[in-house]
Amino acid sequence: MDHRWIPAQYYNNFGTYPAALTVAPGDTVCTVTLDSRGRNSAMESLATSPNPLSGPIWVQGAEPGDRLVVKVISIRPNRRYGYACNTLAGNVVDPDAVPSLPTRTLTEWDIDVDAWTARLLNPPAALQDLELPLDPMLGCLGVAARGGQTISSSTSEQHGGNMDYRGIKEGVTLQFPVFTPGGLLFVGDGHAIQGDGEIVGMGIEVSMDVTLSIDLIKGRAIRWPRGMNEEYLFAMGNARPLDQALQHATTELLRWLGEDYNLDAEAASILLGQCVRYDIGNVFDPAYTVVARIPRKLVER
Amino acid sequence: MDHRWIPAQYYNNFGTYPAALTVAPGDTVCTVTLDSRGRNSAMESLATSPNPLSGPIWVQGAEPGDRLVVKVISIRPNRRYGYACNTLAGNVVDPDAVPSLPTRTLTEWDIDVDAWTARLLNPPAALQDLELPLDPMLGCLGVAARGGQTISSSTSEQHGGNMDYRGIKEGVTLQFPVFTPGGLLFVGDGHAIQGDGEIVGMGIEVSMDVTLSIDLIKGRAIRWPRGMNEEYLFAMGNARPLDQALQHATTELLRWLGEDYNLDAEAASILLGQCVRYDIGNVFDPAYTVVARIPRKLVER
Amino acid sequence: MDHRWIPAQYYNNFGTYPAALTVAPGDTVCTVTLDSRGRNSAMESLATSPNPLSGPIWVQGAEPGDRLVVKVISIRPNRRYGYACNTLAGNVVDPDAVPSLPTRTLTEWDIDVDAWTARLLNPPAALQDLELPLDPMLGCLGVAARGGQTISSSTSEQHGGNMDYRGIKEGVTLQFPVFTPGGLLFVGDGHAIQGDGEIVGMGIEVSMDVTLSIDLIKGRAIRWPRGMNEEYLFAMGNARPLDQALQHATTELLRWLGEDYNLDAEAASILLGQCVRYDIGNVFDPAYTVVARIPRKLVER
Amino acid sequence: MDHRWIPAQYYNNFGTYPAALTVAPGDTVCTVTLDSRGRNSAMESLATSPNPLSGPIWVQGAEPGDRLVVKVISIRPNRRYGYACNTLAGNVVDPDAVPSLPTRTLTEWDIDVDAWTARLLNPPAALQDLELPLDPMLGCLGVAARGGQTISSSTSEQHGGNMDYRGIKEGVTLQFPVFTPGGLLFVGDGHAIQGDGEIVGMGIEVSMDVTLSIDLIKGRAIRWPRGMNEEYLFAMGNARPLDQALQHATTELLRWLGEDYNLDAEAASILLGQCVRYDIGNVFDPAYTVVARIPRKLVER
Repeated sequence: MDHRWIPAQYYNNFGTYPAALTVAPGDTVCTVTLDSRGRNSAMESLATSPNPLSGPIWVQGAEPGDRLVVKVISIRPNRRYGYACNTLAGNVVDPDAVPSLPTRTLTEWDIDVDAWTARLLNPPAALQDLELPLDPMLGCLGVAARGGQTISSSTSEQHGGNMDYRGIKEGVTLQFPVFTPGGLLFVGDGHAIQGDGEIVGMGIEVSMDVTLSIDLIKGRAIRWPRGMNEEYLFAMGNARPLDQALQHATTELLRWLGEDYNLDAEAASILLGQCVRYDIGNVFDPAYTVVARIPRKLVER
Repeated sequence: MDHRWIPAQYYNNFGTYPAALTVAPGDTVCTVTLDSRGRNSAMESLATSPNPLSGPIWVQGAEPGDRLVVKVISIRPNRRYGYACNTLAGNVVDPDAVPSLPTRTLTEWDIDVDAWTARLLNPPAALQDLELPLDPMLGCLGVAARGGQTISSSTSEQHGGNMDYRGIKEGVTLQFPVFTPGGLLFVGDGHAIQGDGEIVGMGIEVSMDVTLSIDLIKGRAIRWPRGMNEEYLFAMGNARPLDQALQHATTELLRWLGEDYNLDAEAASILLGQCVRYDIGNVFDPAYTVVARIPRKLVER
Repeated sequence: MDHRWIPAQYYNNFGTYPAALTVAPGDTVCTVTLDSRGRNSAMESLATSPNPLSGPIWVQGAEPGDRLVVKVISIRPNRRYGYACNTLAGNVVDPDAVPSLPTRTLTEWDIDVDAWTARLLNPPAALQDLELPLDPMLGCLGVAARGGQTISSSTSEQHGGNMDYRGIKEGVTLQFPVFTPGGLLFVGDGHAIQGDGEIVGMGIEVSMDVTLSIDLIKGRAIRWPRGMNEEYLFAMGNARPLDQALQHATTELLRWLGEDYNLDAEAASILLGQCVRYDIGNVFDPAYTVVARIPRKLVER
Repeated sequence: MDHRWIPAQYYNNFGTYPAALTVAPGDTVCTVTLDSRGRNSAMESLATSPNPLSGPIWVQGAEPGDRLVVKVISIRPNRRYGYACNTLAGNVVDPDAVPSLPTRTLTEWDIDVDAWTARLLNPPAALQDLELPLDPMLGCLGVAARGGQTISSSTSEQHGGNMDYRGIKEGVTLQFPVFTPGGLLFVGDGHAIQGDGEIVGMGIEVSMDVTLSIDLIKGRAIRWPRGMNEEYLFAMGNARPLDQALQHATTELLRWLGEDYNLDAEAASILLGQCVRYDIGNVFDPAYTVVARIPRKLVER
């Protein structure tokens, strides 16, 4: 079944709120996300910072210990106005370089979906004519948090959350651990484009039209979000410092190769040792995100 | 001038040793590197662990405050026998997953330069027929360390060292800060292939034929190694945890964009924020390595 | 007013739950805490792991931006049976030392409040006759979390939480930021004694009789928990890695000296530089705790 | 034998330099250390930054795998002029607090050994009359580094080095691993007083008269510096982040309790879990220092 759904309310946390939409496994949801400050396609302010979320979506039959499967069918900016920030976050440069960073203000961008470009509205001279190709992604995707917690949409944990990974884009399929009945899926914080690490604290923030297809795997628990695109399997870890996020992601990928691809710890180690790739989601939020990925063709042999 | 040079002695540290070869800026050096345990193309044991280095190469005219420029012309395994390790390092998985890692032993690989592949000599059943394409790289490249220090070839710092970055391969051009007269270049620790992070503590270790061209930029000091390939500029940071390595790399790239590309901190921040890419060199050695890179076409406009 | 209150229900999160007790500033609350697994003085199981909390206590007049003041009047084990753990946590030793740690089991302790000692019930030979003096403390103390979050009692953040600091004992006065109307104070996880860092993941866990006096400071917001005992002022930071927890604690203490003791950043820096002391609360929970303290006599001059 | 020795030369690294003094196990050395900028008791400039070291002292019979034992008999400032710094280091506060730190300058102190106090020479108004009791310590103590390395006196590693631990003061006895024949002991960087963490990057820096007694334990290798004072045994770990320094220290203390006090991993875990104390040496240098300590009376039972 296809659901076309505009949220009546937005949340700033991943938690156990009343279901706003109920879907069956296999259904598709076509919805919208607000920008990180709460404005929609018409620049109407409908919610507040940080990262208001569309959700929760109750998935019929989802129980703790299951996996929620979310395929991103499409993400498309639904207005022209985007914004970002003009300065690196203090935590991504050496402490003695912090005082020479510029004062924090917004940058504004014109997002042209037809030309598939983003351009600065008031570029500094050095960036005159800068034109970046769009690469829309979802900064926030996840489920109600573990153990009855209600966790801010400005951070991330085992339930997913604000991971700001460029790989959460059209064509990717994600799996999330289910911690609460119905799973309770949330989505938000779309970026027209974003560098690794979200090191200015923002991608080019914009409201989005989003289509997701939702499915369920019963009874095979996972600990961290997992994903798959045409080329790669990947596991995601969320923590500080990056070292620990990397430990979570690597351990989850190791488990995955063991459970689903018949690679014991030794075979998986040999393969990952020579072929793993790491991506950095964000190094800005309270929890950082690291992604460990491996080519599917190497494990699907 | 072209130098064909076989070292008479190998070093396990990046330090101020007597020059083994003297070159002029613009010269090319064709040499060999031993494997990480000290064996050459004929499997003769000529030196000891860790990572014996070919060097030091004295570059005429190099003085503290200059930059040494090293272009990797070619890297080619010069024997068939390679080796790696069968288990993830304890520090890249969650602590509670450490006890279930396999006991550490070597894996052995057949490196076929004609077919451009590496194959396990005694593969576990699950990796039967695994064939990996070669991607030769240098684990160790750098100069005599800062402040008269002598630093192990098992770690890295501002002078470069054991950074284990897959991007140090044919076609890349690196810059190193000069800390001592002559600069004193060292090279070693070739890998036929290596995953991000060198998470089993080894790439496929093998002796190499290596050709480097060496140049000098006078009087424009840098703090961390920098590099360039066809597509990207990159800066390298070496430290623990990854967060600090990332800070060093980002700060150095920011400086580079300011000094050489006329992008002030604000313009550079805007650009990096939406376009930076991060790579992880190693997360195994005492100092980890993070690389920050930006497409050249964005800054050479 | 003095309240004698036995909770009818316990919570495993610091969040915005209905008030279980309402007090006025200046009131005293005499209550109980369960052990970390949910058992009371009679070893009846009334709640589940982790760390069930007594609360929330609504403080009349408390509004976001205020400070809740909590003085610990007394903490006293209310039964003889305590328990802890027999092995160091994997994350506090070098990764290569993890496999030689013993298998995790409980240790059991006899807590003798009259003799003021704890003794192992089945000591290994080497610890025969070990007798430790009691030093009762509260592992969990804090308020409803920031931004409408509901945060597990197994971790900590700006609201306090599971900080496992030995200094939270009789005679200390703490201040917590108020994030939600009423503040909503919670208390739990008493330890008869605990080493720095809670490195076996437990102190000697026991149910407690606890008496707190509660007060309110209107309108002078703080960001992190603060405390005071006879000798020291201290600020607490909760995060991973320890480096960041230390940054939070140091920054909060710097702010405190500026706001309340008329020491500008320079004077405070000079003083802290030569006189600060750091304590480690825990290095076991998802967020670690570092405490920065300074002798009161140095700032109350 | 008692040696009275004034170095003719000072070193800025812990490395394998020619012996400046040769002693036998059991000997006592009475010497001087320069201040961190190289000035002696008469304010004559005899060496350069960072932290010039008196040494190396060759200990007869010391071979790799032995332990060098160093008892600090006395440390005494040998002039009145001390200096420190007026601002917290950028890395010990939250990144967004860095810009409001004062501009870095020196503070100057009058050190009165008779009154046993330090007083600011030009105190800001808020610190008028501040008088701190002396607590002299050695910032740098250690041996030639592991593996033939030469490591800066601004950092630390397994050989000791610039650990800036307040506990290295009169009465303490330290053990260092011997990595090179003769051990090669170095000492320097005296502080009249210093806070935990050396968070302004300096203690009150001053030249010192130092008396050490030196001994040797043959053939029982250690990995990290260990120490003992009247009350405590302690092990020291040096690394970034603090988490890893703490892992090194805890692991070394665990080994110590096993090797010398007959406590297996379980007994040692039980004891450390409830009784360990952690101190922070410095959080300023490239490697941070954490100390794990346990009361001697608990392990010498």
